[in-house]
Amino acid sequence: MRLITEVAAAAGISGEHLELYGKYKSKLAPSLWEEVKNKPDGKLVLVTAVNPTPAGEGKTLTTIGLSQALNAAGIKTVAALREPSLGPCLGMKGGATGSGKAQIVPADDINLHFTGDIHAVTSAHNLLSAMIDNHIFQGNALGLDPQRIVWKRVMDMNDRSLRNIVTGLGDGNGTVRESGFQITTASEIMAVLCLCEDLADLKKRLSRMLVGYDMLGQPVTAKEIGAVEAMTALLKEAVKPNLVQTLEGTPVIIHGGPFANIAHGCSSVIGTRYALKLGEVVVTEAGFGADLGAEKFMDIKCRQAGLSPAAAVLVVTVKSLKYNGGVRKEELYEGNRAALLLGLANMERHIENLGKFGVPVLVALNHFEGDAPDEVDAVLEACRRLGVPAAVSKVWAEGGAGGLELARELKKLLDHAPGGSFAPLYEDQLDIPSKINKIVTEIYRGTGVAFSPAAKRSLAVIEKLGLQQLQVCMAKTPYSFSDQPRLLGAPEGFTMGVRDITLSLGAGFAVVITGNMVTMPGLPAKPAAEGLLVDEDGVLHGLE
Amino acid sequence: MRLITEVAAAAGISGEHLELYGKYKSKLAPSLWEEVKNKPDGKLVLVTAVNPTPAGEGKTLTTIGLSQALNAAGIKTVAALREPSLGPCLGMKGGATGSGKAQIVPADDINLHFTGDIHAVTSAHNLLSAMIDNHIFQGNALGLDPQRIVWKRVMDMNDRSLRNIVTGLGDGNGTVRESGFQITTASEIMAVLCLCEDLADLKKRLSRMLVGYDMLGQPVTAKEIGAVEAMTALLKEAVKPNLVQTLEGTPVIIHGGPFANIAHGCSSVIGTRYALKLGEVVVTEAGFGADLGAEKFMDIKCRQAGLSPAAAVLVVTVKSLKYNGGVRKEELYEGNRAALLLGLANMERHIENLGKFGVPVLVALNHFEGDAPDEVDAVLEACRRLGVPAAVSKVWAEGGAGGLELARELKKLLDHAPGGSFAPLYEDQLDIPSKINKIVTEIYRGTGVAFSPAAKRSLAVIEKLGLQQLQVCMAKTPYSFSDQPRLLGAPEGFTMGVRDITLSLGAGFAVVITGNMVTMPGLPAKPAAEGLLVDEDGVLHGLE
Repeated sequence: MRLITEVAAAAGISGEHLELYGKYKSKLAPSLWEEVKNKPDGKLVLVTAVNPTPAGEGKTLTTIGLSQALNAAGIKTVAALREPSLGPCLGMKGGATGSGKAQIVPADDINLHFTGDIHAVTSAHNLLSAMIDNHIFQGNALGLDPQRIVWKRVMDMNDRSLRNIVTGLGDGNGTVRESGFQITTASEIMAVLCLCEDLADLKKRLSRMLVGYDMLGQPVTAKEIGAVEAMTALLKEAVKPNLVQTLEGTPVIIHGGPFANIAHGCSSVIGTRYALKLGEVVVTEAGFGADLGAEKFMDIKCRQAGLSPAAAVLVVTVKSLKYNGGVRKEELYEGNRAALLLGLANMERHIENLGKFGVPVLVALNHFEGDAPDEVDAVLEACRRLGVPAAVSKVWAEGGAGGLELARELKKLLDHAPGGSFAPLYEDQLDIPSKINKIVTEIYRGTGVAFSPAAKRSLAVIEKLGLQQLQVCMAKTPYSFSDQPRLLGAPEGFTMGVRDITLSLGAGFAVVITGNMVTMPGLPAKPAAEGLLVDEDGVLHGLE
Repeated sequence: MRLITEVAAAAGISGEHLELYGKYKSKLAPSLWEEVKNKPDGKLVLVTAVNPTPAGEGKTLTTIGLSQALNAAGIKTVAALREPSLGPCLGMKGGATGSGKAQIVPADDINLHFTGDIHAVTSAHNLLSAMIDNHIFQGNALGLDPQRIVWKRVMDMNDRSLRNIVTGLGDGNGTVRESGFQITTASEIMAVLCLCEDLADLKKRLSRMLVGYDMLGQPVTAKEIGAVEAMTALLKEAVKPNLVQTLEGTPVIIHGGPFANIAHGCSSVIGTRYALKLGEVVVTEAGFGADLGAEKFMDIKCRQAGLSPAAAVLVVTVKSLKYNGGVRKEELYEGNRAALLLGLANMERHIENLGKFGVPVLVALNHFEGDAPDEVDAVLEACRRLGVPAAVSKVWAEGGAGGLELARELKKLLDHAPGGSFAPLYEDQLDIPSKINKIVTEIYRGTGVAFSPAAKRSLAVIEKLGLQQLQVCMAKTPYSFSDQPRLLGAPEGFTMGVRDITLSLGAGFAVVITGNMVTMPGLPAKPAAEGLLVDEDGVLHGLE
């Protein structure tokens, strides 16, 4: 690992703009923004993927590896990534900093507390929660309806026992009511942190967050609870982006990590803006597959921030396509060209969809040892047939060197694309049901939308409060284009059921909930936490 | 503020041993310990106080000011302090970094997230909580009794609604049971962090923490849950002490902050050890008044760590003595020499008590503007009569310069004290009831102890498990020597009621609960959080 001061210097950042966290991590001071803000922006490249499958597609891996490859090819590149959430690291998922020769470091630090951003979000969120219950306890001047508090509590831990709880039991402990915990990355504050432009915008967004309704059914916001300045105080360091590096010394801005289902799943706007001033190319990623991640990246993040992505890289693997072609998880290691050809429909639809945003697409075939050459060829052949550039990526095994072909193809695409053709899928002026319908029919390819009674009540509230201009944030299973996780490939003819719609007024979107969204994961029978070991020198083993 | 690298250099710490958190905070790397461990120790001075009163005694203030004064007098001094807890900072208490010209800086950072130590304790604690419920959910191989889980959850926030909750409600969310949250500083992990010698000792202590009992009534520990290595991983940075400075550039090691009632209320052993290697004198403090804070400092911290305090400074104020003499809070600003003379009994008893540990005492009269000269003289006269050195301290108004007389008196005491006379109050070999009885009769001056039925059951468990060698950690109201908060001055003739005894096996003590201990504070009608403001430059105002 190089010292972060050296990585920063190579990226043109002088030491005065660094706020160091040890020798290998730094926050970027607002003074840096003052210095770079008038520079031209680099080109923004989104890494997205086909629908996720049990074998893993390697989206973060490809983002890191591609950024290494571009630098190796002489193109000054910065990666912009999300911060891993601690809970899943200790639960099912393990670390989230890439793997093989495409990793960001110091991985353990980044996977655990990092620079404290997620802890700050937890504190700010739970301060508001405590102030809401305290407001009721101290006389309830606002007339809050204890049955209609929508603001829960959060913890960055996988703890299913906290999903549904009853609080305020016992003498002198407040009002007894049902509530629960979400994982911190599901906090609206995380989405707000990632979408805000600066400290002033952060404050504005925190102010308008909805916490519940009063006895007359009127919305009550965080501002009315009096929590905005204190939440801002708790977040004033978290709002500064973090600088780390890849194994090959590529600068990485890693900042924010909202849930990819009930939120938009992209790293911060502020981090992206810094990256665009520092790199000729910025490689970033979005959560889940392109149906959720890319759509929200384009329709929420890029729209709100006025960003214009120059290209999208769609990550596919031979295994993920076979899985989408009907092969069971256990049989993915066996050759099955017929299933692969069937599964290509999934890739093809994502390519088509990305085109609807006016963004040119490059396919990255993330290569696994043992991939059959004829299956690899079949994917490349399909891309040729579709007129889409593609390259095999071997960044896991070879680091940046294994991504040079991908980097070359990307450079060609960026050099030849006209640029400026990006447009979000729907207009702000459309009403919420029409926005949902447009996403369902044009991206998911369902025939229409069925709103539950609860969703219809929420739509009536949206209508009454005049909130049709909000963006929609789809909360859908990532495994299928539809709302049924087992409908793989490129399903058609389904109706999308909308169970409820909730309001993230600070983030600026309505969350459209299809199916049963779990916002607090549980631990598996053998949590990753049990496999860790801290040796005598304080070095952690087992978090990968 | 000087750069922390400069403060460190002046204290003889070279840059390679620093792990910076921005420009003004640093963790001290274990490599520093390797370099200094064979140096002779400085002298350890405890700052303690009379029983706390609503006017505030200024214990932290005096600790900071005295360390500044000693440095000003040419004696190389390091202060060793506790980390403020975020919850109370945003609740009733406000910041906890001193005030006036005796402050540690950067105050806002220290009061908010600091270097993340308390967040790390929160994470480690709640990981264990989640793994306990997950263990039951996944089949309960250990046969844990869900009715006898003693390990709760924690949050660094004042949130009364979380004191008593029911968790695990709803389908697939685990076992429904009663539980609750404590504030993080009340976590046994905080006490463990503050008492451990190093990473290996930390692990040992975490291993033996009691989480509950199985269906046969046998204790179940954190080790059996499989959480020890992961908790250690989460704590591996938190175990390193933090270096900051006072307004006058005096180095301050600030590390750990356990509750002063259900835990021992002192900063970390590791931090104290580093400080003793870096300073000729180390000034440290303990929570609440000397009846609780000093007793636990001597009997728990110094005993476990083999530390030998060279002197104790007892902080008194004219107001606190008048309050102990029966003056109401509202009338403390008026002269009342008669009440003052009555209240001196409180000071006198604390002085006597400190003598029982073989530690010489110096009285610091923390001066407030408006203190009547005849009342100040009365206190000094009482000290002369008792043969105890005393000095007026004006560090709030004047910083180190206002503490020079106190520093001179302390130097005389340290120069002339024989040293090595320290001994804890009770022997490890005594059984728990005898230890409690000794503290109650010799320190509190009650006539005896009355154990509730629950306390008797706990004593039976202690007997059965062979745990009589534990230290006792008294959880008593800080406002009175007795268990009745309104019995001020120097009460006698009372019986101390023990409501329950709980086991902190990692910390190595039995917590003796007298009265109703609140381990999760609530917010007041007007929380400190509401008075904060973050300006356009990101500077926080209002946290004092």
